[in-house]
Amino acid sequence: MPKPTIEWIGGVDGVARIIDQTKLPVEFGFVDISTADEMFHAIKTLMIRGAPAIGVAAAYGMVLAVARGEFADASSYEMALAQAAVYLKSSRPTAVNLFWAIDRAVKASLAAGSAGVSAMKQALFDEARLIHEEDRVVCRKIGQVGQEILPDPARVLTHCNAGALATADYGTALAVIYRAAEMGKTISVYADETRPLLQGSRLTAWELADEGLDVTVLCDNMAASLMRAGKVDLVITGADRIAANGDTANKIGTLGLAILACEFGIPFYVAAPASTFDLDILSGDEIPIEERSPLEVTEGFGRRTAPHGVKVYNPAFDVTPARLITAIITERGLIRKPDRDSIARVLHRR
Amino acid sequence: MPKPTIEWIGGVDGVARIIDQTKLPVEFGFVDISTADEMFHAIKTLMIRGAPAIGVAAAYGMVLAVARGEFADASSYEMALAQAAVYLKSSRPTAVNLFWAIDRAVKASLAAGSAGVSAMKQALFDEARLIHEEDRVVCRKIGQVGQEILPDPARVLTHCNAGALATADYGTALAVIYRAAEMGKTISVYADETRPLLQGSRLTAWELADEGLDVTVLCDNMAASLMRAGKVDLVITGADRIAANGDTANKIGTLGLAILACEFGIPFYVAAPASTFDLDILSGDEIPIEERSPLEVTEGFGRRTAPHGVKVYNPAFDVTPARLITAIITERGLIRKPDRDSIARVLHRR
Repeated sequence: MPKPTIEWIGGVDGVARIIDQTKLPVEFGFVDISTADEMFHAIKTLMIRGAPAIGVAAAYGMVLAVARGEFADASSYEMALAQAAVYLKSSRPTAVNLFWAIDRAVKASLAAGSAGVSAMKQALFDEARLIHEEDRVVCRKIGQVGQEILPDPARVLTHCNAGALATADYGTALAVIYRAAEMGKTISVYADETRPLLQGSRLTAWELADEGLDVTVLCDNMAASLMRAGKVDLVITGADRIAANGDTANKIGTLGLAILACEFGIPFYVAAPASTFDLDILSGDEIPIEERSPLEVTEGFGRRTAPHGVKVYNPAFDVTPARLITAIITERGLIRKPDRDSIARVLHRR
Repeated sequence: MPKPTIEWIGGVDGVARIIDQTKLPVEFGFVDISTADEMFHAIKTLMIRGAPAIGVAAAYGMVLAVARGEFADASSYEMALAQAAVYLKSSRPTAVNLFWAIDRAVKASLAAGSAGVSAMKQALFDEARLIHEEDRVVCRKIGQVGQEILPDPARVLTHCNAGALATADYGTALAVIYRAAEMGKTISVYADETRPLLQGSRLTAWELADEGLDVTVLCDNMAASLMRAGKVDLVITGADRIAANGDTANKIGTLGLAILACEFGIPFYVAAPASTFDLDILSGDEIPIEERSPLEVTEGFGRRTAPHGVKVYNPAFDVTPARLITAIITERGLIRKPDRDSIARVLHRR
């Protein structure tokens, strides 16, 4: 069982303990996050990342923002809660789980309003715990649902990290792999290193190897060669936001992989919880894409690898059109040929 | 005019002076290469790289191997020449220019056999000089031929480095860009960084910026996003070996780019001299692909970016099928829809 990337220590006035993912794979260690500012910083600098995990982290960030505060009355608490929500939502723009978790936590807290500030704090905390616990269950279900499409043996290519480090349990894309391994299937994994921040080689390869799974690292631009050599049976990635029509934002490079998979006749799957769907937007064109610092590209390894002053294109995500996605693996079932209808049908199951 | 990546200093017993490309873009400096061993090492460790440039370097390596040697008779000279050829050919397997240049140099030297060892040395040296000089002319012609397909203005995506640093003059793919700039066309260039060794960000961005051209660096996995955003008018890359049917080996990642270009309806061009064609092989399946050290992927920047002991896939080249190539730009003219016939027709022009 992979190590939990986030845990809550204590009661309503406790702290969040996270793995500092920026130090992996060289150093493995935990950091205690005890304020909303620290949580904002942890999310923004990717000490914690992965759409489901930052949903959980943001919910706990809301608790940290108000649980220890002293408020004269309910309305000053509600004001602080609203400000914390705006603040924490500004940490990263693309993954919808962040907004979803914060809205859910706020709503639960406000619903306890008639019982006073202390009850609202407790309701906020309980909802954060519930979001956390639900994500654990969701990961397990996704892992199980994914077995429908995972042959035995299988050679799986994945991109970025949609594993234990990205969720409250053993992942979304990697849940399918961990579950297959538990069931005794023979799985080998190819992990794109995922420039610029190398979540594939630093995180995915680390957590799979740590669990004793068979993993091979490659540079992103080697995926076409690997596919042409007939070494990939299927691709599974995570997602940061899925529009109502199935267009999927995920880590930069996913679109290219989906196009390559289509060219080589290899099925391309996305694994994501229902909380990653944003049914308020009609297509991927409406998903805001985070642009990150040029230094991630030009000095990503502590050494300058491009001339000073050069311009840099560094979007953190891209959008894969639904037509390139064979199926989306969710905790509510498999969405084959994702479109407005098939998505609505599966997501409304309970 | 970009700086020459290789020069010969002195006469038949002189030395080759090269830019040490492994130090760019942080340090710019020259290294004098005075033995065949040093040249072997310079080619193998990529101090000098790029198919045309390593052809020139290998020819000079042959001169360094025998020019200062003392030989009892012609046959001991010929033996040394043959050994040097085998040795230098073992430095890198994929770029055919290396083999082509060495074979040409040996043949020229042997042809002077009746006039004695000293004349054979001189003939070897003269042929190396000729290979070098011809590459200069070829680059200029490729730059000119490429104008047929380069609109004004144009936004060009390129991969790896097929510029001044890869040839004896201003490149193959980049020759088209340099020539366009000389003619006053408005060109902007997107340079894939080209993992693992970052020849795009370290070398292409450096040489284009140094010449005052407009260049933007991106990670390889961002090309699909850039194309989808409508920011690429055409792609031009170099080549390391082109089979008789037009299948083209080039730096790893080229195949993926060609597939993406096809998906987005963007023309995909290869720029290469006639010496890069290997008409003895029928298709790209016969091109040997160099596998390089896993450390290029896991510790490429002096810092470990993958867990110890992880498996690595690190081919240095891939093969793009001819059907994905809009045209090949050669010094003898444009080969549109490259296939066995169109290639033979253009290459037999003089």
